[in-house]
Amino acid sequence: MVHGYMGKILRLDLTRNEAVAEETPDDLIKQFIGGRGFGIKILWDELSPNIDPLSPENKLVFTIGPLTSTGVHSASRWLAQFKSPLTGTYGRSSGGSHFGAELKFAGYDALIIEGRASKPTYVWVNEDKVEFRDANLVWGMTTGNTRDFLLDETDKKARMVTIGPAGERLVKIAAIVTDDMRTASRGGGGAVMGAKNLKAIVVRGTKKPEPYDKEALKEAIKEQAESYKSNFAFEGFSNFGTNMSVHFMYLAGHNPTFNFKQEELDIVERFSPEVLGQYMVKHGGCHICMIRCWKTYKLTKGAYAGTVSDMPEYETYFAYGSNIGNKNIESIVYANKLSDEYGIDTISAGSAIAFAIELYEKGIISKYETDGLELRWGDPDVLVELVKRIALRDGFGNILAEGTKKAAEIIGRGAEKYAQQIKGLELPGYDPRTAKAQGLSYVTSPIGASHCIGWNTFELIGFAIGKPTDPLTTEGKGELAKYCQDETALSEVGIICHFPVNMGMVNAELCSKLLYAATGIEEFRDPKYLWLVGEKIFNLERAFNVREGFTRQDDTAPERILREPVPRPPSKGQIFELEQLLNDYYKVRGWDIKTGIPTKDKFEELGLSYVAKTLEEMGKLPE
Amino acid sequence: MVHGYMGKILRLDLTRNEAVAEETPDDLIKQFIGGRGFGIKILWDELSPNIDPLSPENKLVFTIGPLTSTGVHSASRWLAQFKSPLTGTYGRSSGGSHFGAELKFAGYDALIIEGRASKPTYVWVNEDKVEFRDANLVWGMTTGNTRDFLLDETDKKARMVTIGPAGERLVKIAAIVTDDMRTASRGGGGAVMGAKNLKAIVVRGTKKPEPYDKEALKEAIKEQAESYKSNFAFEGFSNFGTNMSVHFMYLAGHNPTFNFKQEELDIVERFSPEVLGQYMVKHGGCHICMIRCWKTYKLTKGAYAGTVSDMPEYETYFAYGSNIGNKNIESIVYANKLSDEYGIDTISAGSAIAFAIELYEKGIISKYETDGLELRWGDPDVLVELVKRIALRDGFGNILAEGTKKAAEIIGRGAEKYAQQIKGLELPGYDPRTAKAQGLSYVTSPIGASHCIGWNTFELIGFAIGKPTDPLTTEGKGELAKYCQDETALSEVGIICHFPVNMGMVNAELCSKLLYAATGIEEFRDPKYLWLVGEKIFNLERAFNVREGFTRQDDTAPERILREPVPRPPSKGQIFELEQLLNDYYKVRGWDIKTGIPTKDKFEELGLSYVAKTLEEMGKLPE
Repeated sequence: MVHGYMGKILRLDLTRNEAVAEETPDDLIKQFIGGRGFGIKILWDELSPNIDPLSPENKLVFTIGPLTSTGVHSASRWLAQFKSPLTGTYGRSSGGSHFGAELKFAGYDALIIEGRASKPTYVWVNEDKVEFRDANLVWGMTTGNTRDFLLDETDKKARMVTIGPAGERLVKIAAIVTDDMRTASRGGGGAVMGAKNLKAIVVRGTKKPEPYDKEALKEAIKEQAESYKSNFAFEGFSNFGTNMSVHFMYLAGHNPTFNFKQEELDIVERFSPEVLGQYMVKHGGCHICMIRCWKTYKLTKGAYAGTVSDMPEYETYFAYGSNIGNKNIESIVYANKLSDEYGIDTISAGSAIAFAIELYEKGIISKYETDGLELRWGDPDVLVELVKRIALRDGFGNILAEGTKKAAEIIGRGAEKYAQQIKGLELPGYDPRTAKAQGLSYVTSPIGASHCIGWNTFELIGFAIGKPTDPLTTEGKGELAKYCQDETALSEVGIICHFPVNMGMVNAELCSKLLYAATGIEEFRDPKYLWLVGEKIFNLERAFNVREGFTRQDDTAPERILREPVPRPPSKGQIFELEQLLNDYYKVRGWDIKTGIPTKDKFEELGLSYVAKTLEEMGKLPE
Repeated sequence: MVHGYMGKILRLDLTRNEAVAEETPDDLIKQFIGGRGFGIKILWDELSPNIDPLSPENKLVFTIGPLTSTGVHSASRWLAQFKSPLTGTYGRSSGGSHFGAELKFAGYDALIIEGRASKPTYVWVNEDKVEFRDANLVWGMTTGNTRDFLLDETDKKARMVTIGPAGERLVKIAAIVTDDMRTASRGGGGAVMGAKNLKAIVVRGTKKPEPYDKEALKEAIKEQAESYKSNFAFEGFSNFGTNMSVHFMYLAGHNPTFNFKQEELDIVERFSPEVLGQYMVKHGGCHICMIRCWKTYKLTKGAYAGTVSDMPEYETYFAYGSNIGNKNIESIVYANKLSDEYGIDTISAGSAIAFAIELYEKGIISKYETDGLELRWGDPDVLVELVKRIALRDGFGNILAEGTKKAAEIIGRGAEKYAQQIKGLELPGYDPRTAKAQGLSYVTSPIGASHCIGWNTFELIGFAIGKPTDPLTTEGKGELAKYCQDETALSEVGIICHFPVNMGMVNAELCSKLLYAATGIEEFRDPKYLWLVGEKIFNLERAFNVREGFTRQDDTAPERILREPVPRPPSKGQIFELEQLLNDYYKVRGWDIKTGIPTKDKFEELGLSYVAKTLEEMGKLPE
């Protein structure tokens, strides 16, 4: 068994109620290291193109990495990877908390879920003992109740992921939620679980990984801790979490308002860390992480008094706040809590709500389509009602539950003009017009518009990779986007959280030290190798989408982003220069400019000849 | 130390942060046995008359009994006793679950809480180690969240009682709630805790009581189990809990509708056990009880989909259902859950809502008083909204939060005519006009209109104490009311749950066997002694109220009950014949007919000469 790994991948066939622990292949380890690398390689190898993401043919892979539970900070994230029912692309969503660590303690490097259970089921993984259990009792329950009942039925110390009613109802923006309300929410992983009749996975274990060089690992962890402490963002992030940046990002022009219309938002100082901090009553964090960016909120006044919830993250303040013109913080906290309990993605849900409000404003839909709800900007009741109705597929919510892109198709009448999505995934809280590398990341992301798959923190704050950067210029943005994308990919083999990576607390050099000390694999000593693996992962993800039929024409942005100039400073007048930016980016990537498909040479350079071969056979490889 | 007892009463002075474990006096044990007897004796001895119930001078006594945690079934209830802020009378409210058992394991026969903490506090009783801890974190939280945080801070295996936001806000109908949502909800005990700045009491222990004769106790428990199994109600009650009786009680005419207007309720079969049973997903029960009357409900459809909650009890179906004309079962389940989380009494809250709806119907109040809410019979949204607003003292809810009697005073304009309360406590779900002994129990109950302090099950079903009974006649009802009141009191020294007692599963003879085997106290061998103690307790509670100024004129009923004939069969035309029934009852009780005050002779007969002396000195004893 390779150091740092547990040596087993657990394959769960829900159709046959079969659990098989397979050996983690050495070649997979060397080529893809872990985490995101494992997931995309398994999906590439095992999924046929053009399957229905909600059919038994789809697979759901949960991965962790060789750094998980080794004492390395911020290394306990887990990824859910699957073909997305929201976008039809490859899907990757990242979750935190203790589930990943527990999976390692149970003795596994990954879980592969396949088939479909004949009735509501949950899986109880107690180290080598795996049971497929009846989930009838908890089917229909919110995530918190499901946790309470299933930990009662299994082991109070177990850790788990579950879906809420939204996942069961195949809501396309349904999330996967941990026992303590951390979510892997993007791209509809919850619907994939729901389609498999899989309510939850409960895991418990007592095994420990055995690092290769404990002394060197300790040293590298010390270096990591020092790097954290000396980072410009550490103290703020540790004290306030993503509360730190909401007001700032608005002032910097990045935070979108009113469905990306970008009109000014009054009393925006309500989103300042000082105001938001008033709700904080407790700090928390994932398994082994000195940042502790989780905050617990308590509401004691107003309509939502009595609510205790995880703090909404930056993206939720955007999605349930500024982007629908809502400055009622309490309603955002409450809707965030509902979203965790029902199990939906707050970014996509908020974007669907903003979209609906704008359609209502423009007269494209009316009270007759919304079950009598008057959709007004900034109305907390609209937010709370629509979150529920989307999650439960109730009335008008049933349309929005398909995601903004599909909802626009259903509604017709020109609605697609107002759908802020890329490849079907709703845009997060940074306007592509105001940060061009960030925008490029969205446009070229393999999962649709995601801020987590190449987040350009340093562009957003105007200082990138050692030198000042103007977020509004297009120059050099292809390179910057590629850099952040590959860096995120290389760190997500560990799996290191993308926050410390994108904020410069962890770089490839440190990743390399950590990975070599944990595994003893010679290749991992070289940061260049990691960059290669990061690029390889990103290109394999691209290839997955190419196989599904995606090309350059899908690397686009909503009409508003491409044509409507931003009306407010400091980005006033800006649009997103799509074609120019893409040309630059493809060139840097070594991809065919016309089709946006990696060239045969690029695939070969990355050790992906077999991928090139497959695409060639399908007639999808550029000349 | 006397067998069956733990030998200590823990006195907690919140003003001084002092905890003192006093020896449980032998004389108290012999005279009052435990539970309700202990509580009223302590309150009589230690409270001055006419104190403000929300002042530091009020005391809150938590009691258990010598049968708690001895293996006896249904003996783990605990009582909260205090001067009620809702009624100004003596207050006794009964709760279930494991808190009482844990208090015994911690080594105590009772807790006495006095004074007022200078800031939000909770008490952590870990056997002999008692800490007064800062409750700032959980202040403002609902009961479920409070449990999660405090068990985290203390011991996951601890048990607790807490208040929700309602208790903190001194809502006069605020409940005390256990870690698993069982409530002692009547009379505003939650507000007494709130006024003392006491958010919660968390208890943990490992001690065990030592019964006097284990063999005899085992035998008596066997007899108890057999008595349960052969009882007519056991199977139904075990399978359905109080779901069993809702539809039946409507058909029998007892279940009140539309604020006791008693108009017919259509589609009332929605309240049948078959329909209600569809929501049941799990059975549960208090510490050591073979009935297991708790049921967990799960809602999977409609507006409240995702809700998991304790089943509403009979009284809640009445209060949030028939009495407000609401046949939407899901809304009752949801509002019940909210009530547990915010910590309010469902009977009083529902009655306040029914009262408000009738005032609105009659035009006594309008949208201008209700913050725009249109109060209509049978509207689930009115129920849910008003439950929240009462619990949070929000707008119009702030008036109803005072309880129906006080709310009627505040509103004026003849509103008191529609307030269905006795001594300030709202009527439970049996119409006094349709069951005269039950009505007498309400009218003469020391805590106001309670169904728990002499519940006449057998009158309600037409067969009382061995012979057929017509609930509509007045004859012999004084005796029947006294019988049930004294029987409840004598069983609540154990403390045996009033359900098995009032349904005839446990009688005084069995109580006597259990108590003697547990304690070895010679007097307890004689059931007559228990009847004497029961009557003594009831008379001492009466004396407490007499000392506060209550007399015959307070033993009355709402105008509707006294003057409006029931409009529907089988009780059509009935009113409650107050004076005639009271005269009969006082005579049977040996109380002065004119004033309703126990005579000196009666007090002396019951060993309460010191009580007679006090009242005599106050000029309150009848000639």
